[in-house]
Amino acid sequence: MEKRVYNFSAGPSALPLEVLKKAQEDLLCYPGAGCSVMEMSHRSADYQKIIDGAEASLRRLMDIPEEYAVLFLQGGATLQFSMIPMNLTHQGETTAYAVSGNFAGKALEEAKRWGSAVCAASTKETGFRAVPKITKDMLPADAKYLHITGNNTVFGTCYNELPECGDVPLVADWSSAILGKQLDVRKHALIYAGAQKNIAPAGVTVVIVRRDIILDPVDPVVPIMLRYKPQIDASSMYNTPPCWSIYMAGLMFGWIEEQGGVAEMERRNRKKAALLYDLIDSSELFSCPVEKESRSIMNVRFTLPDEELTKRFIAEAKEAGIINIKGHKSAGGLRASLYNGMPMEGAEALAEFMTKFKA
Amino acid sequence: MEKRVYNFSAGPSALPLEVLKKAQEDLLCYPGAGCSVMEMSHRSADYQKIIDGAEASLRRLMDIPEEYAVLFLQGGATLQFSMIPMNLTHQGETTAYAVSGNFAGKALEEAKRWGSAVCAASTKETGFRAVPKITKDMLPADAKYLHITGNNTVFGTCYNELPECGDVPLVADWSSAILGKQLDVRKHALIYAGAQKNIAPAGVTVVIVRRDIILDPVDPVVPIMLRYKPQIDASSMYNTPPCWSIYMAGLMFGWIEEQGGVAEMERRNRKKAALLYDLIDSSELFSCPVEKESRSIMNVRFTLPDEELTKRFIAEAKEAGIINIKGHKSAGGLRASLYNGMPMEGAEALAEFMTKFKA
Repeated sequence: MEKRVYNFSAGPSALPLEVLKKAQEDLLCYPGAGCSVMEMSHRSADYQKIIDGAEASLRRLMDIPEEYAVLFLQGGATLQFSMIPMNLTHQGETTAYAVSGNFAGKALEEAKRWGSAVCAASTKETGFRAVPKITKDMLPADAKYLHITGNNTVFGTCYNELPECGDVPLVADWSSAILGKQLDVRKHALIYAGAQKNIAPAGVTVVIVRRDIILDPVDPVVPIMLRYKPQIDASSMYNTPPCWSIYMAGLMFGWIEEQGGVAEMERRNRKKAALLYDLIDSSELFSCPVEKESRSIMNVRFTLPDEELTKRFIAEAKEAGIINIKGHKSAGGLRASLYNGMPMEGAEALAEFMTKFKA
Repeated sequence: MEKRVYNFSAGPSALPLEVLKKAQEDLLCYPGAGCSVMEMSHRSADYQKIIDGAEASLRRLMDIPEEYAVLFLQGGATLQFSMIPMNLTHQGETTAYAVSGNFAGKALEEAKRWGSAVCAASTKETGFRAVPKITKDMLPADAKYLHITGNNTVFGTCYNELPECGDVPLVADWSSAILGKQLDVRKHALIYAGAQKNIAPAGVTVVIVRRDIILDPVDPVVPIMLRYKPQIDASSMYNTPPCWSIYMAGLMFGWIEEQGGVAEMERRNRKKAALLYDLIDSSELFSCPVEKESRSIMNVRFTLPDEELTKRFIAEAKEAGIINIKGHKSAGGLRASLYNGMPMEGAEALAEFMTKFKA
């Protein structure tokens, strides 16, 4: 095998080598099925076991109560930006959004197509260096839910404490932290996450939704594929699901369980992040633009004094087998994404490279 | 490797062994990338080459003119049932649908959520044994398009001749025949297809759409992820695409080109289908419920005199390494899907088994 690099991509991102090897081993013929997972009818007993197993494993990992449905859908977090208001509100109703970065802003824009979506708080003016603080009194009295982006991939921030929103249901995009840190499902009405960061390759989106919050019926204009209920009734197989991505998610869930669960993932991710944040904070050369209490353990942002050095850093890192370290274009600088698939040695290799670069 | 079976699934379905082997070979490390395709940033140069290559290959295979956009989307054909009226018409406008089976009916139902969608013709009363004939005079004068399901997976029927609809744009779901037989793109305003039959594993949907037919702007309520224009502008990467499924589609396109293109696929598929249809038509035991001129070369339906025999056939076929031969529950009987991934030997093995079963 060609040499594998350390891939700090914000997503799609690194997967554990053991998971990839398992997928490779069974690619031509899934044990007992006589065909590849990619060739399996989604109505077959073999595939039913795969998708049921994935759901059961995720329920164990996140301690998801029975009153929440678990869905494996398509369209990424971006389609959820529309599905959430369409399933939780009637057209024109009020919802509240905290704007903590690009994707939070996009979620608000989509909600505005459907109803009266209000920006309850934003940290845009201070460059999204922290997540906006939210309290119940900041929300419209008739807000059907509060939407937050739990972890902001682009700006390296995170709601390390959930906002206090009283009886207003909390809806959260945890795309870049789900399974990377412990989340209390019961404190949310809905959690969603694109898979391509901590879960699996791109192509599947996980939605964990408290059943009683879903409108039934939703407004007639809502497309069938944008409704949660038919997907819940069909166990995520209202139509052909993204079978391979769900299979890969299942392998990844199994791997996380083997490693010790989400608590262990969080321990490792904190350790990887601390290694980098400590190095940055104690350095004259590097700096972190994110306020300490909003810092993400999944996406570590840092900067160098000028564009020239930044470019040199990226180029030399690549030569050292460290890729996708460039910050998002709207944030600039550098960014290391430290999802579950990034081994400790990867973070150590980056830290070592940073120390050498400094010298 | 465990013994592979002959998999006649209606979708997801058999893929060529060479394609699966290539995917397996490069799974841990895509040549030159240092990581798996499943780990690649979709914004990387490596992935850009993969998706651009897939599009270029599909354009060559189907001779797609520049005035048509090619999109790789999520959500299956079912999401297209909604996206098509939302992108081609304003809310409330009139469209026409030919109802040739389950999925055609579902397409009509979704269109009705958006506008005045009319059933121009249906063969429901005669059990969908043929596709409904359509002529221009059967369409409402203000119909923005005519929608057909080109090949009906469930009922084993196909528009072997396109309907004559004059200047009314033709929109067609070719999920179960695209790349399996030659299609004249220029005679369509829009072609769409879920990948999981002739193209690739599930998780990606191909849309080929004449650019001038897309509304700009569409109605404000249409979710961003349901709009063609942002996806066209972003070359199918408005958000993270289903990277692996697109990669697999690209491998499959390359394989079809190597084999001699769609003309060669059609020649093989006709040969496979003829082998079965001839056997059925010359048999006392088997019969085909589909009218001859509507017969599909992709999905061959046949029946046995009673339920008992049908069950025995399915069970004994499985023992002989022939799986997923059971008809769809709404059609009953038996069905063999003969997509591009099914080798000639598979059809021969089935024919041989049928001959033995007869005896």
